[in-house]
Amino acid sequence: MNTASETLLTDLYELTMAQAYLAQEMTGIAVFEFFVRKLPSRRNFFMAAGLEQVLTYLETFHFAERDLDWLAQTGNFTPSTLAALRAMRFTGDVHAMPEGTVFFPHEPILRITAPLPQAQLVETRVMNLLNFQTMVASKACRSVMVAEGRPLIDFGLRRSHGAEAGLLAARASYLAGFAGTSNVLAGARFGMPTYGTMAHAFVQAHHDEAEAFLHIAQAQPRNVVLLIDTYDTEAAAEKVVALATSLKNQGISIHGVRLDSGDLADHAQKVRLILDRGGLTDTKILASGNLDEERVEALLKSGAPIDRFAVGTAMTTSADAPYLDCAYKLQEYAGRPCRKRSEGKATWPGRKQVYRRLGRDGRLDGDLITIEGETRPGLPLLHPVMQNGRRLAPSPSIEKIRDHARLALAELPDTLRRLDQAAPYDVRIAEALEQLAQQVDRHT
Amino acid sequence: MNTASETLLTDLYELTMAQAYLAQEMTGIAVFEFFVRKLPSRRNFFMAAGLEQVLTYLETFHFAERDLDWLAQTGNFTPSTLAALRAMRFTGDVHAMPEGTVFFPHEPILRITAPLPQAQLVETRVMNLLNFQTMVASKACRSVMVAEGRPLIDFGLRRSHGAEAGLLAARASYLAGFAGTSNVLAGARFGMPTYGTMAHAFVQAHHDEAEAFLHIAQAQPRNVVLLIDTYDTEAAAEKVVALATSLKNQGISIHGVRLDSGDLADHAQKVRLILDRGGLTDTKILASGNLDEERVEALLKSGAPIDRFAVGTAMTTSADAPYLDCAYKLQEYAGRPCRKRSEGKATWPGRKQVYRRLGRDGRLDGDLITIEGETRPGLPLLHPVMQNGRRLAPSPSIEKIRDHARLALAELPDTLRRLDQAAPYDVRIAEALEQLAQQVDRHT
Repeated sequence: MNTASETLLTDLYELTMAQAYLAQEMTGIAVFEFFVRKLPSRRNFFMAAGLEQVLTYLETFHFAERDLDWLAQTGNFTPSTLAALRAMRFTGDVHAMPEGTVFFPHEPILRITAPLPQAQLVETRVMNLLNFQTMVASKACRSVMVAEGRPLIDFGLRRSHGAEAGLLAARASYLAGFAGTSNVLAGARFGMPTYGTMAHAFVQAHHDEAEAFLHIAQAQPRNVVLLIDTYDTEAAAEKVVALATSLKNQGISIHGVRLDSGDLADHAQKVRLILDRGGLTDTKILASGNLDEERVEALLKSGAPIDRFAVGTAMTTSADAPYLDCAYKLQEYAGRPCRKRSEGKATWPGRKQVYRRLGRDGRLDGDLITIEGETRPGLPLLHPVMQNGRRLAPSPSIEKIRDHARLALAELPDTLRRLDQAAPYDVRIAEALEQLAQQVDRHT
Repeated sequence: MNTASETLLTDLYELTMAQAYLAQEMTGIAVFEFFVRKLPSRRNFFMAAGLEQVLTYLETFHFAERDLDWLAQTGNFTPSTLAALRAMRFTGDVHAMPEGTVFFPHEPILRITAPLPQAQLVETRVMNLLNFQTMVASKACRSVMVAEGRPLIDFGLRRSHGAEAGLLAARASYLAGFAGTSNVLAGARFGMPTYGTMAHAFVQAHHDEAEAFLHIAQAQPRNVVLLIDTYDTEAAAEKVVALATSLKNQGISIHGVRLDSGDLADHAQKVRLILDRGGLTDTKILASGNLDEERVEALLKSGAPIDRFAVGTAMTTSADAPYLDCAYKLQEYAGRPCRKRSEGKATWPGRKQVYRRLGRDGRLDGDLITIEGETRPGLPLLHPVMQNGRRLAPSPSIEKIRDHARLALAELPDTLRRLDQAAPYDVRIAEALEQLAQQVDRHT
């Protein structure tokens, strides 16, 4: 995982366009906004995430000498382009919705205001970071809503799309309300809780399942969670009960058992009975194995006595919607608002602000997208977070982002909290913005 | 993108189990195999990819001091575990199918033979690397088959799941037969061709579309591909024709135009006519915009005069199947074959080999999964690639892997080459393996 040269992690055309802008001295101030065009069929809203990584990227943006050497040997870049890239840092401003904010299609969640070559060059990585974490947070909070307080744990690393996906999915799901992750590096990097149980291989490597339970309990005495489905789930639950007393004598309690296959609701019922009968009423049941929010909801609706859920692949990859229809579009250049009119992909021009009204019940009651500077009723959602290439304030802790996300979910009307598709939330385009669009069209 | 500590990029339970194995002196030789349980509904085969990154990971596997410090402060690891981890390197053997090999469910593509704690600890990252690249290669080669020689370019970076996904998707699609990528870092890292055009923002930043075309052509004179759908596609095509003469006088020819929205087939027809009428018969048409193999096939079947395709998000995220149902399972420990019998997730025990028969037409004619050491008709697909933690030979170049993949696709029967679901390919379990499974079951 050699990951030098994040600055080269970009589409070639960004560099080619930068060369053209520099050659033409088109270095005026450009305004780009990031937004999502539409909701996937199984989402009623999005949750913003990824801003922290974007700001770090922008603050540290620079071309290393080896990057410039590589660009030079392609023969496609002039000495004056290379000199300009060598000196280039990100000197622009950023406005954004805080991470954990709920948002809807066409609402910008990030605005970059910077000299055109800079604002263009950062496009690919900014999109890459915002698309992924926003996608994961928007998926993860669906499980959070249906779990109704039961802890959820991210188990998705092995099938996440590479190293960074595993790492950032752990972060995005945690800020959306997950209790933690199995991903050790995410724990080390983000200071988030890590959880682990044991694998089937551990049981198989032993001659005897009960012996395997004993050994893993001794190896992590503070959080014993035993995997009981390697051979026969209920038989294994009986072994857990039998083991409990001797473990207790060693000062070790069995925190939980994990079910990973078969009819989870049925196994959970039977195992709960066995555990309770054996006096292990405090031992929790953790379910895992191809879970997603639909299955979590179905299991709980069926009354399955499951206390916590490990949600992996489906969440980490956002399997039912593995990308967002997102865009990073030029909305203004050198003081002139602009828009794209490509069929089916037209955008709203200019610098925008989103105002959100809450109803008397404290729930979301309609958003308005308007041009910046126009004050409207409600709370403005976009705030300045970076000026002249520097953060305006230290980043909020991930715990603070979690709090913000929790409030955001609590403010959702009930219809939007359901898993099935709701009637679209009321997002209006202000007259001022409509007029600006017409004006731009007349002049293009 | 701070990516220290790849070794901590693992599930917590791997470390806990390692602690238990070490405490119990369970350091005998373990055999794990990686395989995929079943085909997604829109795949007829898989293409193996990711081995190169796995071998690099294994060769460089070690815990850095900062990793050990972090583990120590969690309070969950004993001094003797930490000492063992500090000294640990990967000293095992690896057998694998070469990258670019076509394979089917239940066929192992990688076998790791190593002391149990090592073989267990590498599980998460090995799965993470093989799952992702194999998934992308298996998706990408579907576009390769339907494009019938027309160049395909990876444009997926912005919606790939983070940095490493973008990088490795470029690699995996290239080895599967793509012509190159827009991803500059992938070009620098893997020596693969990079391609770029221009963005709508570039046109919008100019007052005049024709002026934008001129400026980008001057900025990358060796590969001029003009994006013509920002406002009116056919009107822009006329501007391209008008520009061609003056560019020719500057020694610049217009290599292609790019269509990115609307009815691509219809626009391609009209644009082809305009270009040909204007004498630009050599100017290629590149199509992009939410393309996948189904759309590429439909466009070509409709007779659309499209010369090359940029395939992005759908390929990079394998959007219709964004993960594989893959597993890394313990098949033998300390000379004793073992298997998991969990409901719906049972595995075949022991060290395995896959034999492939070719028919008289040179096409695949049936695979046999058997136990290692049993010689059967056909070609064995698993080969030793690492011994005692060291590669047995230098890695093949990516060009050589491409050649292997091209041959593998050419050997596919026509039914498996189609996009729609084919009857399953004939993969049999050898009697020797069936017997071993029964024997293992009797002794568990």
